Amino acid sequence: MTTPPSPSDHPSARLAEFAADLRYEDIPPAVLRRAEDLFLDSLASILAGAGAPPVQAIARYAAAMGPADGPSENLVTRTGTTPLFAAMVNAAACHVVEQDDVHNGAVFHPAAVVFPPALAVAQALGRSGRDLLTAAVAGYEAGIRIGEFLGRSHYKIFHTTATVGTLAAAVTVGHLLRLDATRMLHALGSAGTQSAGLWEFLRDAADSKQLHTAHAAAAGITAAYLARDGFTGAQRILEGAQGLAAGMSSDADPSRLLDGLGQRWALAETSFKYHASCRHTHPAADALQHVMREHGLRAADLAAVETLVHQGAIDVLGPVTAPATVHQSKFSMGTVLALIALRGHAGLTEFDAAPGDAEVAALRDKVRMTLDDEVDRAYPRRWIGKVNVTTTDGRHLHGRVDEPKGDPGNTLARPEIEDKALRLARYGGHATESEVRALIAQAWRLAEQERVGKLLSE
Amino acid sequence: MTTPPSPSDHPSARLAEFAADLRYEDIPPAVLRRAEDLFLDSLASILAGAGAPPVQAIARYAAAMGPADGPSENLVTRTGTTPLFAAMVNAAACHVVEQDDVHNGAVFHPAAVVFPPALAVAQALGRSGRDLLTAAVAGYEAGIRIGEFLGRSHYKIFHTTATVGTLAAAVTVGHLLRLDATRMLHALGSAGTQSAGLWEFLRDAADSKQLHTAHAAAAGITAAYLARDGFTGAQRILEGAQGLAAGMSSDADPSRLLDGLGQRWALAETSFKYHASCRHTHPAADALQHVMREHGLRAADLAAVETLVHQGAIDVLGPVTAPATVHQSKFSMGTVLALIALRGHAGLTEFDAAPGDAEVAALRDKVRMTLDDEVDRAYPRRWIGKVNVTTTDGRHLHGRVDEPKGDPGNTLARPEIEDKALRLARYGGHATESEVRALIAQAWRLAEQERVGKLLSE
Repeated sequence: MTTPPSPSDHPSARLAEFAADLRYEDIPPAVLRRAEDLFLDSLASILAGAGAPPVQAIARYAAAMGPADGPSENLVTRTGTTPLFAAMVNAAACHVVEQDDVHNGAVFHPAAVVFPPALAVAQALGRSGRDLLTAAVAGYEAGIRIGEFLGRSHYKIFHTTATVGTLAAAVTVGHLLRLDATRMLHALGSAGTQSAGLWEFLRDAADSKQLHTAHAAAAGITAAYLARDGFTGAQRILEGAQGLAAGMSSDADPSRLLDGLGQRWALAETSFKYHASCRHTHPAADALQHVMREHGLRAADLAAVETLVHQGAIDVLGPVTAPATVHQSKFSMGTVLALIALRGHAGLTEFDAAPGDAEVAALRDKVRMTLDDEVDRAYPRRWIGKVNVTTTDGRHLHGRVDEPKGDPGNTLARPEIEDKALRLARYGGHATESEVRALIAQAWRLAEQERVGKLLSE
Repeated sequence: MTTPPSPSDHPSARLAEFAADLRYEDIPPAVLRRAEDLFLDSLASILAGAGAPPVQAIARYAAAMGPADGPSENLVTRTGTTPLFAAMVNAAACHVVEQDDVHNGAVFHPAAVVFPPALAVAQALGRSGRDLLTAAVAGYEAGIRIGEFLGRSHYKIFHTTATVGTLAAAVTVGHLLRLDATRMLHALGSAGTQSAGLWEFLRDAADSKQLHTAHAAAAGITAAYLARDGFTGAQRILEGAQGLAAGMSSDADPSRLLDGLGQRWALAETSFKYHASCRHTHPAADALQHVMREHGLRAADLAAVETLVHQGAIDVLGPVTAPATVHQSKFSMGTVLALIALRGHAGLTEFDAAPGDAEVAALRDKVRMTLDDEVDRAYPRRWIGKVNVTTTDGRHLHGRVDEPKGDPGNTLARPEIEDKALRLARYGGHATESEVRALIAQAWRLAEQERVGKLLSE
């Protein structure tokens, strides 16, 4: 005989309880270190996107509507404000260059909607670095599972980072506010009923993506602060008959909400973005980098590069033979591999300079794609990278990676994350190298900080 | 031969163009006077709801996140702030007692999401009363049509006042910001992609309804201010393949978006709420009031009252024979008619005192409902009210109304609107009678005001 479920024993309530009760000591050290990595990665993304016109517009709006100063740090303007506006502006900046992390299963970019509110509220409340990290992990674990729950039908119309982001932000902030399970569930209710973000803007290349992360961060903060003050929300905002899934998904699976809570750490399943190009180019780029390092090759040594790819790569990248724009260059296998060989990176800065670069074009034309049976069969479960290199002195060399750089099984080492942070910040031009090195140091010692202070203003 | 439509010739664009181009002189005087009526009615609703705990929580949140002063008036706290927070708090208060207007076809309460942002932005920009009225009409015309467009399927899951409210608020504010048609369309795009609000909270009687109007007002302001600054949004946020209707409706009808634009004035189709009871009691209440006035009856003259009703009234109200709570009293035909006879009104104050009132209970038990063929056949197209009254001195009298009080064909006269405003404000206890009389005077001379100033603080 089974005990009937108590009124609070439903997925939303159990997820809220997990998020409210999560303690720093519950989280494996490797997950905490990854959270620090992602924290730094998000700061670097903010600095890279700070100058973008949509972000500047949101920053001007925040200045017009918000107070002239406050305990939270607007990293775009380097001024103090309240948590609402700091989180709004920083979240807008974090997803501009699209170098922030992604959870493939949830099709969700957690960092952009978790770390800006986490930082803003931790600064405002004087919370410790451990508090910030624990809250961020709670936000990741809840948000990724909610994204998985809403399924692919949701993502067809709705921008999951926007919709789920509202809930992830609320959980993160709710944890910093030390909401109990009851109030955390109210915060979920108030967040879910503000959950919004449509893909329609893509058709016009409109600025909505920045508004989406800004809105998610702001609405999440609103939901959590109101819950702290006793404001109530729906108990079953996710799975109820007039809840989020009922309105905005046709294949929602409530079992995903609680999948492995406390054992499976979804934060550690996210991928860092390493190259700034189309994902289909990444395995071959990594394989070329590998073989060049192994054999000490320079770009001038390359006579021909054959990339062994899956059919999807040929479908998407095949038509791009003479890229004329930055965007097209990111979809050109030859350009990506030429940048790796010539510049060592296929990052934002390298792509900005790629169109019209004769040296890049010459090397680009030495690269071709061949369908490979092993690679094609493994896709999309595994993204294997294989290249055959012919050198100018007649050698035939082979390079291979079994998982693209940045994915959980081939994650970035701290020097690579630092290097990426420096390059992103340099691209944005919003912080000096020494400032970024100080940010890096703060991220690595976050767990020792008694109070999270301002990062760039002090 | 027909000219092919230009790229901007789609419903969203034409609606934006209408809203941007609307001029005071285009609007019939009767519609403008009705807009003044609705303005006053919304201020009274704000004063009635100001003390409610969810509104107070949102006001505390606004105080925590916003500046300490500003050009816009938070009517709940009677302090100055920026338009964002004034509109957010006032909108939260406006829909608490549910005495604000409703458009039956769109199932949308426009005043709560149109007038708070209109007032806040007009005060901040020093706009005239005519500017405020014109902007409000633009918001009503666009919002009601968007609600009709989204249809009944939307309303099953989504709270239309919340979702459509975001767009109505953006149009209203966009008009005050003098956006051209291009920027107004961007404002629609940014508003629609923040459009949110689920009915799930009803199951738990949670506080979300106040958050919904607050969010709609805030998101609408954000969308319009960003559009003024060049921030772009989706061109087809309403009807596009990944737009609002695609994600949140299954019976959307784009032809409704442009229905009679410039000829049909949807603002004048909204109903004032007059009695604070279930809508099914209103026709009989009006018919009783009519017969009592016609024959100079007092409550003591009533020996029996037979209400002639449609089947729906019997279904909903029939089970309520001995109401014990305020809420049940609003669903008791006998209680409603007893309040009309004894107190002259069935308003918020009267209902608060109704449970346990022996005089009300005695008269209540003299009222019965009878199914009437004419009334039933006319419903729901027309809500006819018919009563047969037997007096203590043996007369048999009949009362009849063909449209409930407050509906467009039987709208409130200004003395009735003033009286309702005074009663709502008295109920809220947030303004003195002389303050409310001053508000009334300001509403009636709104079209002559060169600059909309603060209403209660000056």
